[in-house]
Amino acid sequence: MDSLIRTVRHFIRLSDEEEKVVAGLFTEVFLRPGEYFLEEGKICRSVAFVERGLVRYFMTQDGNEKTIYFSSEGEFVCNYSSYLPGKPSEVSIQAVEETVLYVISKDNLQRLYTDISMGERFGRLAIEQVFVSSIEQLRSLYTDTPTERYQQFLELYPGLVQRIPQYFIASYVGIKPQSLSRIRKRIAGGG
Amino acid sequence: MDSLIRTVRHFIRLSDEEEKVVAGLFTEVFLRPGEYFLEEGKICRSVAFVERGLVRYFMTQDGNEKTIYFSSEGEFVCNYSSYLPGKPSEVSIQAVEETVLYVISKDNLQRLYTDISMGERFGRLAIEQVFVSSIEQLRSLYTDTPTERYQQFLELYPGLVQRIPQYFIASYVGIKPQSLSRIRKRIAGGG
Repeated sequence: MDSLIRTVRHFIRLSDEEEKVVAGLFTEVFLRPGEYFLEEGKICRSVAFVERGLVRYFMTQDGNEKTIYFSSEGEFVCNYSSYLPGKPSEVSIQAVEETVLYVISKDNLQRLYTDISMGERFGRLAIEQVFVSSIEQLRSLYTDTPTERYQQFLELYPGLVQRIPQYFIASYVGIKPQSLSRIRKRIAGGG
Repeated sequence: MDSLIRTVRHFIRLSDEEEKVVAGLFTEVFLRPGEYFLEEGKICRSVAFVERGLVRYFMTQDGNEKTIYFSSEGEFVCNYSSYLPGKPSEVSIQAVEETVLYVISKDNLQRLYTDISMGERFGRLAIEQVFVSSIEQLRSLYTDTPTERYQQFLELYPGLVQRIPQYFIASYVGIKPQSLSRIRKRIAGGG
């Protein structure tokens, strides 16, 4: 739980008493590789914090999975486009590795906002950060070339290239695994 | 100022004293048609509320203006992708009609968050609303067909079709004005 509390403290001050309240609002959840935090068509009703492991976000397009995002240790996981308006999700969120999540329900997150003295500020700052990152992700998804997408992947997820199967990275970049090998060789060659 | 205060009260309770504080944090700004609230390349350093009039958001693509969004009476105006991280804006925001804005600087918005008892909650709820709408706009921009874009325009901006010049609507839909006429005839004919 230390890493979660540290992340909340990155945004706001917490008294020792409040730290216990925050810890009590989250539930530990284990996912094996391939298990889901959220499935397409269901409503996202909670937010998770990645204590250990790695998840990917994907959509189904013309029967194919299109990977759009990854989250690993120290990051919050949620499809806010489903969570905030309470609409069915167009995105699935699935564990890539064995993953330990701390999950908070919508009701408990409301409690965090109201029962912690700077809870509302935490909510505002956290959603502001997610906002900027989501807009940038969506823009990149639709306008960047495969090479730009791969370079962006390396910058955004510097430690993950060894942990994510090649076909998920290729899907994120928007190309076939063979084409990804060519891009990697070209970048390695400085071309 | 009534309409601004009403909009803030839609999100949070305000005492009479706080209402005066909020009113004092905004400055009235008049824009003539064609004048800018924000120009591409500059950093967005304030948020505006439209008291009267209409603005459009646009980007420049291959030398052409691409209209992506409109805001009118009762709505907040800002490019949060520039405002939040303090990065140069890729979007311009320009008055379409004579427009009266109430503008709040970044410093004054911080004051609103801290000096109003539910200020942080206002900030969280307002940005949550903008978040959902921005994600949906961006998705539509890149994935919807022109006919879908025009129907979405009519749903999103029911009162504005008479107020916005045809070439801005065509630019929003992503087609030439002549093609827009054809789509309008087809929709009017129920086809």
